[in-house]
This record gives sequence, C-alpha cells and structure tokens, in this order.
Amino acid sequence: MSVIYFDNSATTKMSKGALDALNEMAGCHFGNPSSLHALGLDAEKKLSLARDTLAKSVGLLRYTRAEVIFTSGGTESNNIAIFGSVFAKKRQGNEKILTTVGEHSSVEEPLAFLERMGYNIVRVPTTGGELDLEFIKKNARGCILATFMHVNNETGALYDLPRAFEAVREQSPDAVLHADCVQSYQKVKFTKKSLGADLISVSGHKVNGPKGVGALFVGADIIKAKKLSPLFLGGGQESGLRSGTENLYSVCAFAKAVSEHMENKCEAEKIAALRDYIVEGATKIDGVRANLPKNRAPHIVNLTVFGIRSETLLHYLSREGIYVSSGSACASNAPKKASAALLGFGLSEDEADSSVRISLSWENTKEEADKLFCALENATKALVKR
Amino acid sequence: MSVIYFDNSATTKMSKGALDALNEMAGCHFGNPSSLHALGLDAEKKLSLARDTLAKSVGLLRYTRAEVIFTSGGTESNNIAIFGSVFAKKRQGNEKILTTVGEHSSVEEPLAFLERMGYNIVRVPTTGGELDLEFIKKNARGCILATFMHVNNETGALYDLPRAFEAVREQSPDAVLHADCVQSYQKVKFTKKSLGADLISVSGHKVNGPKGVGALFVGADIIKAKKLSPLFLGGGQESGLRSGTENLYSVCAFAKAVSEHMENKCEAEKIAALRDYIVEGATKIDGVRANLPKNRAPHIVNLTVFGIRSETLLHYLSREGIYVSSGSACASNAPKKASAALLGFGLSEDEADSSVRISLSWENTKEEADKLFCALENATKALVKR
Repeated sequence: MSVIYFDNSATTKMSKGALDALNEMAGCHFGNPSSLHALGLDAEKKLSLARDTLAKSVGLLRYTRAEVIFTSGGTESNNIAIFGSVFAKKRQGNEKILTTVGEHSSVEEPLAFLERMGYNIVRVPTTGGELDLEFIKKNARGCILATFMHVNNETGALYDLPRAFEAVREQSPDAVLHADCVQSYQKVKFTKKSLGADLISVSGHKVNGPKGVGALFVGADIIKAKKLSPLFLGGGQESGLRSGTENLYSVCAFAKAVSEHMENKCEAEKIAALRDYIVEGATKIDGVRANLPKNRAPHIVNLTVFGIRSETLLHYLSREGIYVSSGSACASNAPKKASAALLGFGLSEDEADSSVRISLSWENTKEEADKLFCALENATKALVKR
Repeated sequence: MSVIYFDNSATTKMSKGALDALNEMAGCHFGNPSSLHALGLDAEKKLSLARDTLAKSVGLLRYTRAEVIFTSGGTESNNIAIFGSVFAKKRQGNEKILTTVGEHSSVEEPLAFLERMGYNIVRVPTTGGELDLEFIKKNARGCILATFMHVNNETGALYDLPRAFEAVREQSPDAVLHADCVQSYQKVKFTKKSLGADLISVSGHKVNGPKGVGALFVGADIIKAKKLSPLFLGGGQESGLRSGTENLYSVCAFAKAVSEHMENKCEAEKIAALRDYIVEGATKIDGVRANLPKNRAPHIVNLTVFGIRSETLLHYLSREGIYVSSGSACASNAPKKASAALLGFGLSEDEADSSVRISLSWENTKEEADKLFCALENATKALVKR
C-alpha cells in the first residue's frame, strides 16, 4: 500500500541533501569542536559554517556567535527563552507575562509552572485565528516577557507578530519578546528584524532536517544586557548559553536542510496552492468544514468532520495509508484538552474534538489530496450516525 | 598523511553499524513517536526497542519506561540529575552535597551554581586517583545528593563507587546517589545494581554513537518518591522527565552502538593491553612520566612531559597527525585551571599543565603507539630547554 504523509507539522522526512550532509560529517568530520587539534578545529569550522547558514536564514548577515545558539530542538529553545529570560531577572513581585491562549505545550507548560510560582500569565485571545491586538494594548503595561507563536500548529493561523511585539515594546520597553517560529520557519518569510523579536525558536525536524536539533536566535541587546540565563551548565559551549558537546552532525544536516529551503523559493507557493485545493475539495463533502484563519501558513489545513471523533477518523485514515493528526501530536500521553485555538473558531468542545490537521510538504501532490477526499467521504458515510 | 586518533575520550567516530541504523531510521521510520497513526506507532516501537537495549546494558532486564530517559547527552543527563534532584526537594537550609574534587564541568558547574545559592558542596579528595573513602565516611551525614564520576576523564582513574555510595547510604539513607558514567560506560563492566546508584548518566558519542544523545538511568525508588524534577517542560515525553520530540534516529543509532559494544566483550582487554604498551613505551622516553591510578579504565593514559606545556605539545603532535588532548577537551573557551585530578598525583601546577591525555578505541594499534613514541621523543628533543 502506498502511503500518504499529511502530517508534516508533526515531523518531516529528512531531505536527501540533509542526510548526505549528516553522513559526510559523521564519516569525515567527527572531531569534538572543543578539541584543539586539527580534527577539532575542522569540526569547529563546520559548526561555524552551519551557524552562518542559520544566521542568514533570519536575515542576520553580520552577527556574533552568541546570536545563534544550537539546541536539542524547539522544546529546549522555548524552555531556554522562557525560563532563561524570567530567571535572569531579579524577581520583584507578580510580574506579568503575555502569551496566547493556544500555545504549544513547550511554551504553555513552562508558563503554567511560572503561574504556580505566582507569575501573572495573561493569555491573549485568538478568535478566528487572529491575535487580539486591542487586548494586547490593554494588557502590555508592566510586562517582563511576551511569548507568542508565529503560526498556530493546529490551525495554521499566522499571527501578526510585528504589530503585537510593537504594541508590547511601546508600553514595556524592557520586556523580552520571544517568537516561537517552529511552525513558520521556512514556510513563511520573515527576518529577525521584520518580526521585531528578541528571541526566536526554530526546530530542525520540522524543516526536513534531523530530529533532536534546533536553534534559538538571541538578540544582541539581550546578550549585552545579560537578559538570558542558560538552563544547562558545563563546558560553556554555545557562548555559555547551552553547554554540552555540540550535536555537530545534526547541526550541519539541519543547516543543509535550511539552505535547501532558502534556495527553493517557490515551494511555499506550491504548497499553498495544494492547501487551497484541499480546502476546496474537502469542504464539498457533506459534514466537513475547514477552519480557516484570515492569515494562514501555506502548509496547514484544519478540518472539522462533524460527528466523527478525531481519533476515530485518524485511525480510519491510517488504515487507508493516509497519515494526519488530531491535535498537535507533539504532546505525548497528555490528557486531551479541547484546543483553545480551535474553540476560537466558534466550535463547541465536541466539534473541536472532531477536527483533524492536514499538514503538507513539497512532496505532497494533488493525487494524494484526491485520495484524501475519497477516504473522507467514505469515512463520513461509514462512521457518522445519521 | 595518515592520521592517528588518540582522543577517544573527547569523542569517538561513529561505528558503521550505528551510522547504518541512523540512516535506516531516517529513511524508513521517520514518524513522530507521539503521532497516533501507523508511522507514529512504528516510531514509538523503534524507540521502545532502543530503550530495551539501554536498559539491558546496565543490567535492567525488567524495567518501567521512566527508568531509562533519553537526553541530548552527558551534560544534560548530569544537569537533570543534579538540578532535578536538588530542586525536587523542598529546601531546608544549607543542605550538603558530596562530590569529588575533579568532576567534569557538567557536574562541577551546576554544583558551583548551587554553592552560590548557599548549598554546602563538599569535595572528596582523589589522591593518587583514589576516592578517599574515610573522608566520605566522615562527611556523609546530612547529605541530600552524592554525585561522583565513575572514571576520571583526565587520568582514567576508576573510582570505587559501590563502596562510596554504600558509605553515603549508610549515614544518609534518603540521599540521591548519582554516578556520572560517561567515561566508564562500555569500557568498564558495571550494572546499575553493582554500582548502587540511583541515577546514572551516559553519553552516545563516547561509545561510537552519534553526538547529541545520551541517557539518564533513574531508579524506580526515585520515580516512586518523586525525587527528580524535569528541566524542560512541554509535551511530557520520556515519562515527563524530558519533554521534546524524541531524537529518534540518534537514539536508535546510540542503541546500536551500545549493542555492538555488548556483543564484543574482548574489546576492553585489547584496549587495556595497548594502554599498558603505551605506558611502557612512553615512560622509557627521558622526561616522560605516566600518571597511573591504582585502579584504571582501559582506555585512558595521562602522561606528563616535563618542560613542555600541554597545549604546545598537543599542537606539535597535531602537526604530526597525532591527535591527543590537553585537559578534558569538553570545556569550550574555559579559562584553563590546574586540574585537581592531576594535582592529586603529586604534580605541581606547572607539571599538571605539562600533561596530555591519550585515549584509545578498539581501532588503535601498536603501530600507532610506536609512532607516538617517536613523536614524543622528537618533541622532547625539540621543545624542552635543557
């Protein structure tokens, strides 16, 4: 049975180029970048070239090493951004932190932890897939950290971070501004400057790189003002912000995947066209609705299939060889909660629990979409009680 | 120029089997283990098999998932062990933590941080490469954590952890006992039970696996009594102790490397024989002394070459295509401090700074050792002022 992989927001397959880069590193450049002999210097050079690629990918043409920190992935990047910036600051009282109602668990869980410590976490509504800018303006005073996702992982909603961060900066000029760009990186065009963020999290395995590697971009001002503490201590690698022998092979494979995305600029348009094709085709089926944000990333479609629980539909489609996701699929063994991002589209809790996410890569085709339509139609006939 | 790699304690080259395993995973089993469709379940199954291998490698034949936690490497494992066990405990006053004078920076730096917070860090001397058991017995009362390395990364000294932990347990039955086994894993035979440790850190890239992956073994009692907190929060992967999409390909490659070590039981004897050959040959050279602990790991020899600073010698040897290490080489950009482990061999600070580490793998040969002797002899003639 041929397989249709529509779960690229959960993880992607590595590109051939990225896997080749990994093999070349493991075979010929396996030194420890901290070693002082020729093999160590060679490794350090490769690491440095990878850092250049990452820097360039967010528009940093001149940068210092501490502005691009390699991590073990999006979760670590988000944890360093949140805990690192909050704990770098001497605590006054119940400091305010702004976020959205529907963040990924790697942002929401650290914030929930801080909330239990007494921090004041204020969650911005995202009705219809839009960040409520008026709410932000009303609540931005006295804020020490704003942490917003760029693209919602469940709905594909693209949030207007430039204006959101500007609104926070205006009233809280010292606040640290963090963008979780795990779902937008290499899908939506942005630079560090265009976002206006101090910290940006990205992940390797969402952009056809390996799992277990990511990066955190850190603003020069943040470094200068020592507004970020590391979570791990040790050998002082990554400018002291992330100790541990560098994940060299994966870092270089990640950089290769990123450079491939940067070269192939039409990809997003092709993916967006397929997304629109899916929205059109799927919503022709009785009982299927697309939850469409006004501004959207090219690669995510969220569909509600009324009357079928999302897990049931997911397993049905899996048996047909079509892999989609219910919820974000990055939460392991977590008790299922109704998704705040989906409730923002006016769905009831039951309806939100009847939603699946289709997430695309450049390898997906219209023929695969047609097979999805067939399967969805059959599913509604077989599974919905009328 | 053919190259002689004698820096296997800094990092090893991946085995062919491990690299093949990584490629197979990336090509055919790239799902996210948290995804509920068939590709996700397949990934979860592979992850589970890797966990079985790791468990078996420390003698755990029956275990629960939370007893083997995959991490991004030795540094993260050590940080979780130390910060995770200390912060899981409600603070009373200036709690005592036992360690050795010569730990790796990924243990020493977290402890120095806790020291600045007011914790009482008591450092056990290691004169002549032996853990001072009498000192431990005198200082074990009221201890909340004992964190000892199993094999010293600079001298190869093998510490008697079973007796050390027993001494701590006797006087502080509630203390958490952590063994940093990054340098001993798959070099020295031990099981979790034989060590008597609650927590054990190991690393992939020290045993011919990939960089950027490691594990922390966690005792069932620790889990039951909730004596360990996670450092990252998020999707709740790795039994809630280490959130983030699992580093699947590297985890499976790590497990493959470990299983290869487990199958090839003679390796340690072969390496130990080469170590002894190097000790004998090198110490025949005028002005070269081996710093020999009574109990030693098979793969590390520390040599003092009187009158040549270690960095100078390292660069000299690197130009000859022989790669060795000064210090532990896992510290990046750290200001050089005299090594406490070496000072324990009666060296002066200057002499400790004239020491290099030779660290072996099963790929090293006597012919390579002979070339090292030549180069050392030439170096002493060329570089030592008489």
